Amino acid sequence: MRTTSGTRGEKVPTAPSANPAVDTAAVTALLERGRTMSTPVLRAAVDRLAPPMDTVAAYHFGWIDAHGRPADGDGGKAVRPALALLSAEAAGAAPEVGIPGAVAVELVHNFSLLHDDLMDGDEQRRHRDTVWKVHGPAQAILVGDALFALANEILLELGTVEAGRATRRLTTATRKLIDGQAQDISYEHRERVTVDECLEMEGNKTGALLACAVSIGAVLGGADDRTADTLETYGYHLGLAFQAVDDLLGIWGDPEATGKQTWSDLRQRKKSLPVVAALAAGGPASERLGELLAADAKSNDFDSFSEEEFAARAALIEEAGGRDWTSQEARRQHAVAVEALERVDMPEHVRAQLVALADFVVVRKR
Amino acid sequence: MRTTSGTRGEKVPTAPSANPAVDTAAVTALLERGRTMSTPVLRAAVDRLAPPMDTVAAYHFGWIDAHGRPADGDGGKAVRPALALLSAEAAGAAPEVGIPGAVAVELVHNFSLLHDDLMDGDEQRRHRDTVWKVHGPAQAILVGDALFALANEILLELGTVEAGRATRRLTTATRKLIDGQAQDISYEHRERVTVDECLEMEGNKTGALLACAVSIGAVLGGADDRTADTLETYGYHLGLAFQAVDDLLGIWGDPEATGKQTWSDLRQRKKSLPVVAALAAGGPASERLGELLAADAKSNDFDSFSEEEFAARAALIEEAGGRDWTSQEARRQHAVAVEALERVDMPEHVRAQLVALADFVVVRKR
Repeated sequence: MRTTSGTRGEKVPTAPSANPAVDTAAVTALLERGRTMSTPVLRAAVDRLAPPMDTVAAYHFGWIDAHGRPADGDGGKAVRPALALLSAEAAGAAPEVGIPGAVAVELVHNFSLLHDDLMDGDEQRRHRDTVWKVHGPAQAILVGDALFALANEILLELGTVEAGRATRRLTTATRKLIDGQAQDISYEHRERVTVDECLEMEGNKTGALLACAVSIGAVLGGADDRTADTLETYGYHLGLAFQAVDDLLGIWGDPEATGKQTWSDLRQRKKSLPVVAALAAGGPASERLGELLAADAKSNDFDSFSEEEFAARAALIEEAGGRDWTSQEARRQHAVAVEALERVDMPEHVRAQLVALADFVVVRKR
Repeated sequence: MRTTSGTRGEKVPTAPSANPAVDTAAVTALLERGRTMSTPVLRAAVDRLAPPMDTVAAYHFGWIDAHGRPADGDGGKAVRPALALLSAEAAGAAPEVGIPGAVAVELVHNFSLLHDDLMDGDEQRRHRDTVWKVHGPAQAILVGDALFALANEILLELGTVEAGRATRRLTTATRKLIDGQAQDISYEHRERVTVDECLEMEGNKTGALLACAVSIGAVLGGADDRTADTLETYGYHLGLAFQAVDDLLGIWGDPEATGKQTWSDLRQRKKSLPVVAALAAGGPASERLGELLAADAKSNDFDSFSEEEFAARAALIEEAGGRDWTSQEARRQHAVAVEALERVDMPEHVRAQLVALADFVVVRKR
C-alpha cells in the first residue's frame, strides 16, 4: 500500500509510520483457523433456537438463502474469532479454550447487526437483503434478542468462575456497543460532529467488541484482570484502526471488493472520520465541503444525485485533508495497539500473530 | 370472589378448589416492600444509561412523562420484585440479598415489554402511549437492548459464583421469554391453536420469568440448584395462574381497573386461553364461535365492530365453557404452585407469604 505523505489537516500530532508489510499467508491461515474452529460451534448454538428463529438466523449468517436452500454466503472477515483463539493462546491456554468466547462475541456482533440494520433502515448487508427486508422487522428484533441471550448462555453454561468473568466483560462491551449505536443515531440529526465525538462513537461501536474478543479467550484461559485489560487496550485501538480503514473504504473502496455501492458512506450521509476531519481542518476546501453538505442535508434531490456529484464531495474531502488524516489515524491507532502487546507476557509466536493481524487490518481492501 | 361452579368444557380433569381467601393487607405490604426496596436500585441502574436512553427508559417506567417532567406513573403490580426478596428469605438470607435479582428481573421484563409492544404494534401500556409511539421504533429497540444488557451487568458486577449462577438462570428465562414471543407471533397467523400450545406459549412468556424471580434471590443467598429448581416450579405455575387470570381480565376485566379497553383481547384477536378452550370444547356455542372468529379473521370491518359484536363473542366463549375452564385452570395452577412450596425447607413465615402472593394472583382484578 502506498504511504500517504504529509497532511493538510490540523489534527496530525506526529509523523505517521509507513504502512506495514503484511504476512498475508499467516493472516489468511489465522482467519481460516478462527472460522474453521468456531463455525461448527456457532451453528450448533444457532440450531438451539426455536423455529422460525433458527431459520432467520441461518439466513442472516449466510448459511441458507431466502428460500431456505443451503447457501455458502459471505460470513464476513472473521477477525473476531481469530482474535479470541489467539487470546486464549496469549494466556498460555490451547486455542480451543477460546472457542466459546469466539462464538459468544460473534453472536453479540450479529445481534447488533440485526438490530442496527433495522434501526438504520439498511436494506443490504454482505451482498444480500437484510433480515428485516426478507423476514420482517419483528423477526429482526426477535432473532437479535435471541442471539444476544444465546451469547450469554454459551459462556455461562461453562459453569466456571472464568466464564462469569468473561460474560461480565462481554456485557460491558455490549453496553458500549449500544451506547455507540445511540450516538450514531443522534449524530445523524446534527449538522456538525467533532473528530473526538466521532472517535468516541467508533470506539464504542467497533473498539469495545474487538477489545472483548482479544481478552475473552485469555480470561477463559485463566488470565488475570491486568493482562486482560492490556489485551483489551490492544483490541480497542485495533478496532479504531479497523474502523478508520472502514471509513476510507466507505468512500474510496472498490465496490467489487467491499460489496457496497460506490461512495457508500456519502450516499448515507454518514459523518465518518474522513468527513469530520475534513470539516475540522479549515481552509477553502473544508469550507466549501461544509456548505455543500449543509445544502445536501436540506436537499430533496439527494437521492437522485449523480456519480459526479458524490465524486465532487469525495474530492473536496480529500483536498481538505480528510483522507490523509484518516489514513494516518489508522496507523496511529495501529501503533498504539501494537505497543500495548509489548506489555503482556505471552509466547512470542502469539505476539507475532497478533501483530500480523493488526498489520492486516490497516492494509485490507475489504 | 365467587366460586365458579361446574363447567361445560370437556377439559377439566378434577374438581377445582374454591378461590382462596386472600390476606390483602399482607400482600399489599409485600408488594410495597418489593417496590420500596428495589425501585431506588432500579432507578440508579437506569441512570447509568447514556442519553437519550436514560430518558426513554425513565418514560417507559413511568418516572417522567413524554415531555420529561417528573411523573408518578403506574409501574405495574411489582409482583416480581416482591418474589425475588422472598426468594432470598426462603434460602435463609436477608431480603436485601435479593435486590440485585429483583432489579435484574425487572430490567429483563421491561426489555421484553419494549420490544413486544413494538413487534405487536401495541400503542398503549399502563394507561400511556408506548415508547415506540412517543420516541420512535429505533429508541424502543435500542433501550430494550440496553435494559437487557444492564440486567446482566447488575448481577455480574457482584463478582460472586452465585451471581454467575443467577445470571445463567436469568439467561435461560430470557430465552424462554423470546421463544414465547416467537410462538405468540406465529399463532397470530394460524386459524387454530390448541390449549396445550397456548399453555406452552404462556409458560414461556409469563411462567419462565416469574420462576426466575422466585429462584434468583435464593441463588444469590446461596441456595443449591435443587432448592432453586423447586422454587422455580412454584414460580412457573404461579405464572400460568397469573396468565390465566390475565386472559380472563383481557375479556371480562373492568376497564377502570385494568387500564385496557373493554373486550381488549378480543379486539386484538388474541388466541388466549378462554378462546382456545371454548373452541376446543365442542358443542353448538363452540362451533358458532369458531365460525364467527373465522369470518372475523377475513373481515375488513373488524376495526369498526360495535360493543355488542364483541359482547356477543364473549357470551359465546362463556357459553362454550371457556370462561369457567380458564377460572378453573388458574386454580389448578395455583394448587400445583402451592404444592411445590411444601417441598422446600424454608422459614414458615416466608412460605406463608409466598402462599398469600399466590392467592392474590388468582383473585386480582387488575
